[in-house]
Amino acid sequence: MKKETPSHPVKIALLQTRCGECTRSNLQNTLSLAEKAAQQGAKIICTDELFKSQYFCQSEDHANFALAESIPGPSTEAFAAIAKQYEVVIIASLFEKRASGLYHNTAAILDADGSLLGIYRKMHIPDDPLFYEKFYFTPGDTGFKVWETRYGKIGVLICWDQWYPEAARLTALQGAEILFYPTAIGWHPSEKEKYGVNQHNAWETIQRSHAVANGCYVAAINRVGKETPVGGDGIEFWGQSFVAGTSGQILAKASVDSEEILFADLDLGSVNVTRTHWPFFRDRRIDAYGQIVRRFID
Amino acid sequence: MKKETPSHPVKIALLQTRCGECTRSNLQNTLSLAEKAAQQGAKIICTDELFKSQYFCQSEDHANFALAESIPGPSTEAFAAIAKQYEVVIIASLFEKRASGLYHNTAAILDADGSLLGIYRKMHIPDDPLFYEKFYFTPGDTGFKVWETRYGKIGVLICWDQWYPEAARLTALQGAEILFYPTAIGWHPSEKEKYGVNQHNAWETIQRSHAVANGCYVAAINRVGKETPVGGDGIEFWGQSFVAGTSGQILAKASVDSEEILFADLDLGSVNVTRTHWPFFRDRRIDAYGQIVRRFID
Repeated sequence: MKKETPSHPVKIALLQTRCGECTRSNLQNTLSLAEKAAQQGAKIICTDELFKSQYFCQSEDHANFALAESIPGPSTEAFAAIAKQYEVVIIASLFEKRASGLYHNTAAILDADGSLLGIYRKMHIPDDPLFYEKFYFTPGDTGFKVWETRYGKIGVLICWDQWYPEAARLTALQGAEILFYPTAIGWHPSEKEKYGVNQHNAWETIQRSHAVANGCYVAAINRVGKETPVGGDGIEFWGQSFVAGTSGQILAKASVDSEEILFADLDLGSVNVTRTHWPFFRDRRIDAYGQIVRRFID
Repeated sequence: MKKETPSHPVKIALLQTRCGECTRSNLQNTLSLAEKAAQQGAKIICTDELFKSQYFCQSEDHANFALAESIPGPSTEAFAAIAKQYEVVIIASLFEKRASGLYHNTAAILDADGSLLGIYRKMHIPDDPLFYEKFYFTPGDTGFKVWETRYGKIGVLICWDQWYPEAARLTALQGAEILFYPTAIGWHPSEKEKYGVNQHNAWETIQRSHAVANGCYVAAINRVGKETPVGGDGIEFWGQSFVAGTSGQILAKASVDSEEILFADLDLGSVNVTRTHWPFFRDRRIDAYGQIVRRFID
């Protein structure tokens, strides 16, 4: 392959954490991991989803709205300080209080000068047993977005968004070179033996496919640990944060049960190389996709 | 899991062939494999892409247009006889001559009474070194389609279509329970060592992801063998036809280099079970997908 594209190296870091009961400790822990990642050369750093608390959506409890905060707010300020000091981009997943009675599952994107570059509000909201997110989060109204950060053009999508090829496509069509997916997903312990392997494989496969379809990088950041904030069996978060290359290949993968910083060395020039050799964008039948905005074609 | 959905078993067969230089022999061979598959209980049978000849798109040669035929025509009649005799559904991938100077890469769908249920014309046409399809095939004007066959509701897409989540989605939104992908894909021998694993994995991953995103079955039918119709290194077709379940798991997979009939026992009831438990269709943000009909969002 001729060297038709200049290299554009960038190291990224995914903060895969174990979330305890104290939100202050969780925040402190993730800030400290972000600092460590920056010290080790990462230029774009992403947290897992809603890392500040245990996964409170296991029940519908009005008291949990007290966990939300404004954006910008104390957490974005704390990350901004690190972003500015180390000149790194940070993506922080937070529970946003937008107004009384109006909350979102939101990612804040801090550029390498510490400025708040923008926010993305989770567009697809799940609701399943022990994942009662529709009670807490209003579906996002930001639409799908990209940001030209100091180190590359990135898109951010959140957890349930990962199952929707439309979300990845619309973000890539705006030029995203890396799609970040802060995530909180795990097994119901009673289902793990029978369905666990298929569930995890489906999750990894669909996200790798976004890299394939769009010729871009994908980074999925998940938490670890078993959490039982309302008793019962709780959820066993399956970790295994990973980075997929521009052909969907796994470049780096974290463990199933340990807190860790997952680093990956990317070359954003690969986006151009891959799309030149696998020119899927060239042949899209945009004249024939109109019905995709229908709920069902019946 | 409660038994909320009645079972709907159906055995399918994928005809993975090695294509020789004689089109008459290739047709005879595939007809004979279809008959054997029917005798062994398959109810829906699908050929690989353009099985009647070696992959002629390795060069741009006007003489190759003589390989095309009308639909309905002699090949569909031959398959119709088997479909009727054994009461099976057959999907046959053919080079269609629609009019002088107007050709398509087309799949014919024969129902279990031998009637021609419909056709699908490949919508996405590739063009890469040794895959000069844009010279031969006008992009399809059928749009994405489904058919209510005697044994289940199926959609058919062809090869390059497999890289487009939009195609799978639009077919599934019409109710397809199985997506069939007749295919002719392989390695450039000179690239195989360096890129071969990634290329094959990308191909398998993107198709498994269509099963995941849509909670349906996916069947990919590829050919085997090295073909050098215009000399040079040719193409080494990588076989490995497979069937993915409604969570994207591999249910059956053929070899990399042998002609074979790949059978799989499906339960179309799984579509309902999977979509009930992983309700991705419920949460699509159809209000936010409109821009997907744009070439690029710039």
